[in-house]
Amino acid sequence: MRLLEEKIKKDGRVLNENVLKVDSFLNHQIDPSLMNEIGKEFSQRFANEGITKIVTIESSGIAPAVMAGLYMNVPVIFARKRKSVTLTDELLTANVHSFTKNESNELVIARKFIDKNDTVLIIDDFLANGQAALALVNMVQQAKATVAGIGIVIEKSFQPGATILKDQGLRVESLARIANLSNGEVTFILEKMEELI
Amino acid sequence: MRLLEEKIKKDGRVLNENVLKVDSFLNHQIDPSLMNEIGKEFSQRFANEGITKIVTIESSGIAPAVMAGLYMNVPVIFARKRKSVTLTDELLTANVHSFTKNESNELVIARKFIDKNDTVLIIDDFLANGQAALALVNMVQQAKATVAGIGIVIEKSFQPGATILKDQGLRVESLARIANLSNGEVTFILEKMEELI
Repeated sequence: MRLLEEKIKKDGRVLNENVLKVDSFLNHQIDPSLMNEIGKEFSQRFANEGITKIVTIESSGIAPAVMAGLYMNVPVIFARKRKSVTLTDELLTANVHSFTKNESNELVIARKFIDKNDTVLIIDDFLANGQAALALVNMVQQAKATVAGIGIVIEKSFQPGATILKDQGLRVESLARIANLSNGEVTFILEKMEELI
Repeated sequence: MRLLEEKIKKDGRVLNENVLKVDSFLNHQIDPSLMNEIGKEFSQRFANEGITKIVTIESSGIAPAVMAGLYMNVPVIFARKRKSVTLTDELLTANVHSFTKNESNELVIARKFIDKNDTVLIIDDFLANGQAALALVNMVQQAKATVAGIGIVIEKSFQPGATILKDQGLRVESLARIANLSNGEVTFILEKMEELI
């Protein structure tokens, strides 16, 4: 998605070879107009999947997910992070370890919001090691619903998440795919052959 | 806001005289179309205030705030909750105690995103005791920016928050104002005189 790549080039900050800060437009300060375009793009990419629900994680997934939900006319559910949870039949839960923050969280979704008739699109801001997306997939599957695919705003393609998800047969649509963050610069994977010409 | 009141009547659940659950459309599952209308309503109510930034709190404030930001064409910043923070000059911080959850959090906003030239609209999902809104006001004032007002989705008018904020000279616009939750029902404060006729 050209608009997003340009925004990342302009306002993203490469802290080191692994870390890209996008807190000026995605995960602390948010650019609503960009989120609107991102939501529209997700809705186009998953238009033929019969999506009935979108699932994301608090907090940075909410803005792109809600915009996608507006275009797709479906509810959005955000999984809540909890340090520990008293398990009940009323909750879908999964553990997720963040390598970035080196902390584990329990994710929680009220079971009543997803059932076996749902076809779910998972949306998140970043895909790196894939642990958060896998946890969401796991929760959707606990509810016996169908995972239609995973929509990611920024994929760090040099980390294993995308491959792990695709190896499970999951469709992954990432709007910006970063090949590397070497030399303090963002290099994207070329999306279309014409960009090679 | 009639549409919101009807949604609360239809899908809100009164747990007791103090607690209204709206997790099916506002703070766990989100109704994007309703958020869109809420954003539009906030943008109309604060149209003449010269708003340059919207500030909210993760996670439930994000959806209505981003929709308002889309209509007002301004960035949205969400304060992050932290258990404890190493203070630096780069952060605006405030403590907030949640009576509902009986826990204290430190709120954090990167200082670089708000400066003295900003006119800030604060948006949150609920107004009860006003502690969260006051913390956001405090942080905006630390940045020497102007608080244009506070936009609230659901005000529990039987709790002191709205009065506390208005006593400080702050403009509060609440889209639904709940007079009481007695007898398992939601009773709204009438907004317009014609509703009395």
